[in-house]
Amino acid sequence: MANSRFEYVKSFEQPDVLLPNTWIVVRIDGRGFHKLSDHYAFVKPNDRRALDLMNAAAVEVMKELPDLCIGYGVSDEFSFVFHPSCQLFERRNGKLVTTIVSTFTAHYIFKWSEFFPSTPLQPPYLPSFDGRAVIYPNSRILRDYMSWRQVDCHINNLYNTTFWTMVQQGGMSNTDAEQELKGTVSGDKNEILFKRFGINYNNEEEIYKKGSVVYRKFELEEPTPIQTSVDEVSPLTEQKQSRSQQDKIKKLRRKAQVVVDHVDIIKDEFWERRPWIISGNPGRLPA
Amino acid sequence: MANSRFEYVKSFEQPDVLLPNTWIVVRIDGRGFHKLSDHYAFVKPNDRRALDLMNAAAVEVMKELPDLCIGYGVSDEFSFVFHPSCQLFERRNGKLVTTIVSTFTAHYIFKWSEFFPSTPLQPPYLPSFDGRAVIYPNSRILRDYMSWRQVDCHINNLYNTTFWTMVQQGGMSNTDAEQELKGTVSGDKNEILFKRFGINYNNEEEIYKKGSVVYRKFELEEPTPIQTSVDEVSPLTEQKQSRSQQDKIKKLRRKAQVVVDHVDIIKDEFWERRPWIISGNPGRLPA
Amino acid sequence: MANSRFEYVKSFEQPDVLLPNTWIVVRIDGRGFHKLSDHYAFVKPNDRRALDLMNAAAVEVMKELPDLCIGYGVSDEFSFVFHPSCQLFERRNGKLVTTIVSTFTAHYIFKWSEFFPSTPLQPPYLPSFDGRAVIYPNSRILRDYMSWRQVDCHINNLYNTTFWTMVQQGGMSNTDAEQELKGTVSGDKNEILFKRFGINYNNEEEIYKKGSVVYRKFELEEPTPIQTSVDEVSPLTEQKQSRSQQDKIKKLRRKAQVVVDHVDIIKDEFWERRPWIISGNPGRLPA
Amino acid sequence: MANSRFEYVKSFEQPDVLLPNTWIVVRIDGRGFHKLSDHYAFVKPNDRRALDLMNAAAVEVMKELPDLCIGYGVSDEFSFVFHPSCQLFERRNGKLVTTIVSTFTAHYIFKWSEFFPSTPLQPPYLPSFDGRAVIYPNSRILRDYMSWRQVDCHINNLYNTTFWTMVQQGGMSNTDAEQELKGTVSGDKNEILFKRFGINYNNEEEIYKKGSVVYRKFELEEPTPIQTSVDEVSPLTEQKQSRSQQDKIKKLRRKAQVVVDHVDIIKDEFWERRPWIISGNPGRLPA
Repeated sequence: MANSRFEYVKSFEQPDVLLPNTWIVVRIDGRGFHKLSDHYAFVKPNDRRALDLMNAAAVEVMKELPDLCIGYGVSDEFSFVFHPSCQLFERRNGKLVTTIVSTFTAHYIFKWSEFFPSTPLQPPYLPSFDGRAVIYPNSRILRDYMSWRQVDCHINNLYNTTFWTMVQQGGMSNTDAEQELKGTVSGDKNEILFKRFGINYNNEEEIYKKGSVVYRKFELEEPTPIQTSVDEVSPLTEQKQSRSQQDKIKKLRRKAQVVVDHVDIIKDEFWERRPWIISGNPGRLPA
Repeated sequence: MANSRFEYVKSFEQPDVLLPNTWIVVRIDGRGFHKLSDHYAFVKPNDRRALDLMNAAAVEVMKELPDLCIGYGVSDEFSFVFHPSCQLFERRNGKLVTTIVSTFTAHYIFKWSEFFPSTPLQPPYLPSFDGRAVIYPNSRILRDYMSWRQVDCHINNLYNTTFWTMVQQGGMSNTDAEQELKGTVSGDKNEILFKRFGINYNNEEEIYKKGSVVYRKFELEEPTPIQTSVDEVSPLTEQKQSRSQQDKIKKLRRKAQVVVDHVDIIKDEFWERRPWIISGNPGRLPA
Repeated sequence: MANSRFEYVKSFEQPDVLLPNTWIVVRIDGRGFHKLSDHYAFVKPNDRRALDLMNAAAVEVMKELPDLCIGYGVSDEFSFVFHPSCQLFERRNGKLVTTIVSTFTAHYIFKWSEFFPSTPLQPPYLPSFDGRAVIYPNSRILRDYMSWRQVDCHINNLYNTTFWTMVQQGGMSNTDAEQELKGTVSGDKNEILFKRFGINYNNEEEIYKKGSVVYRKFELEEPTPIQTSVDEVSPLTEQKQSRSQQDKIKKLRRKAQVVVDHVDIIKDEFWERRPWIISGNPGRLPA
Repeated sequence: MANSRFEYVKSFEQPDVLLPNTWIVVRIDGRGFHKLSDHYAFVKPNDRRALDLMNAAAVEVMKELPDLCIGYGVSDEFSFVFHPSCQLFERRNGKLVTTIVSTFTAHYIFKWSEFFPSTPLQPPYLPSFDGRAVIYPNSRILRDYMSWRQVDCHINNLYNTTFWTMVQQGGMSNTDAEQELKGTVSGDKNEILFKRFGINYNNEEEIYKKGSVVYRKFELEEPTPIQTSVDEVSPLTEQKQSRSQQDKIKKLRRKAQVVVDHVDIIKDEFWERRPWIISGNPGRLPA
């Protein structure tokens, strides 16, 4: 074909397949959301509409990609997790990341007017997201990743809640509030909230304190210690799964409802009662 | 900080900086656009609204990222080119690709209703795009890449035009048309179009035959042979550019109008008259 | 410093750090050993001197790099394994591989005359080796890797033993022997050896049938099932190891004798009785 | 075959092909040569035997790998350069680096006794080398790399010559000499050498001041400015080279003598008179 003369340029494409049998986390982040949240007057410290929109877009991503086993969102970031057995797009890094980033962006823009009915998008101020993939060799470290994000959520939210209360209710300037909070620990911030403003941080909404977990819902199980390494089993075992078994699994995943929770994912309980997330084997569909 | 206990998971992130002093091409592709174009009843072989929407989104990407020196689009794909001197996001692969994919998607979704006023988007059928970055060591190969895409445009468009004319005007079945076209060369297809349907392929619209080039418009220059390697000069030279020079360049790029052309980019003329694309140095703004 | 003018070239070096918490296998292979073994008249199918030389060089590599937990050699190849907790050279791929390849080569050349006293090396026929690193996310897969090499050893040795017996004792031509062996299974080869030549393959030397395992010798333990994932534990645990603990471990590793065994490493027993290989924690030194 | 059960482990090997049409530099470095040079009592600041041994090993590497176009050595390091058109080992990073490291090590160990006849190697003090590959997109930057190494050679040699003269002839302690040299520039060191010890640095041996260049010798040409980018030409041109042309080139390269020079490689002259190094096209063999 006439084209072949230039086709050598394809040889410059470099493979980017992610190591087999590892957890893949794709984390996306809002680009320039600081400026954006000013422009669209997001409520401080948390804009419920913005978080709900993030979650709604994340649910659509989960639905479109049944290979995803869990997602976790806080502020303008969202992490999506593929199971070690995932073979989607032959595990190509670029393909996985851009597909998630683009799908998320599409739904975020499309649903904007639903969550911000009175604040239309105004180009060039269109929200967009960047993303990256990181792989983790076992479920212990994957859980440490998830814990890292949830601890981060807690730390930031406690800070932001205190800061904005001092500003909004306490009438302090941004600079003064920032200055006073420098070097404080959690206890100090809790005390400021409680003593000065009568706010018990524990009573704040869970979505702000815990962030948002999205996953497919099967019937909860009795909390039994997770097999340390259901996911670490040799791939030999998996190879034995027949094609029809795999199809059955896919179908079950598609059938399961994708839910949004605001719960602790650092302790074992969340994972023990939902063993399908780590094992990759769908549980029983709720009646 | 309490968070540090889990922070070690950050050490699993792997760097993905692209080789310095090389051309970076980010090509994005519509995901599942075959199905999508059926769903929204795109006109065959070319839907002008869909192409105009692609171009409109591409122009926005060019505007938002002044580091881009040229883009080329055909069908549901678009290639965006960064100059070897580009330092955006420290040349991180993932960051560059996802930013372009997400920005493009955002504008594509947002502008949809403008180009398809009577065909609203219907989730879950939302358009999305994947993308990848490829680097090329010099401008000769970069141009071969661009030529590759334009030749591809030509080949596909000639085929599609012939195929759909046989089906739509000739009343043939898809299978019969496909069968007859198997193994034909360009001359054969031109002849079918002309002899059977009185269509001179040369008179087809340029946007279909040539695809779409987007770039910043400065005053055209007299076609003089390009210094083979303005772009290949040692980075030593670049380092000497003062900060204020760099800022001046950025400003000029932002001021320049981003235009969409449907012209030959295989021959030298396009590049010789627009030397700023390869050199990275803005030309003179049109009066 | 005057040098700085050219120092920018360092920025073209790309990082190659291997994913943390994974097993690193460095496999080296003799370059052109087919031709080399002809030149130096290696005995067929197995040259004991050549294998002993490989093992002697491997033992030196193990001694020089206490981070190595096990090695396995067959023919002109050797695999060396670093534990997931290994931080040597910050886990840089190139540094790890070239260090092993070079150290192995140095000892191989240096010791040649000891093992081939009457066959001096004749340049340009100097033995050399290439190498590569592969990472494996857990011990189950690492063991599958080791099993893969030992099964390969078995298959090749059975073939070579049969082939060369047919040629050397049976007086067949290489081509005829090759032809007859085409498509045979293990049973067929065992039968040829036994029926035609009275050779019971099981009585062949273990070093030929099983290859060579090198590791640090501590006191064997009672075979208890290995904790599935001693190696998969979160790195959080490791971080708690004090510097002095780490030094103690290093010292114990250096003290332990490096031994060469020719035993089964596919079944569990080898690993269960030597738990220090997978755990990375030295056992008790033999009295 | 029985082996297939474990063969899946091969899928963990990751490709490491270097970008096409770029210069490949493999630089190797002596491991722990500081300690080693003490052990074998290398002469300070420069041990001629050690440098000659480095060069002898480098010449063997050049002979064994005709794809190499030039090498440059200083102290215990050596850089080897492959042309952008090089296809050896499909340009696999690991394969190229380990082959060079191992071949170099083999010859270094083998030739040791020739250059150090009265100082036999004593294990475990065996010399070894590590290495890495870096790619450069054009000949301008490649030359800057070579200049970087030669400037480094100059800076280090001037320092070392001054330091050791102060210690050996001036009777200063290492610490005192180090202290006095701190913060000095080239002029200061030249003056110390000349005023205190009557040494004109310019008269030092070229091998110490310039390092060692190894390359294939063809007839020198009249110094004409190098075509800026003979190497940057589109690979399209190369593809047209017939197999027989390529074989002829290989043969010429093998025939050419590999020579060792101690000359300036920063200025243009060296490259202009030996255009075959950058062009990759062998010159005329000397009569």
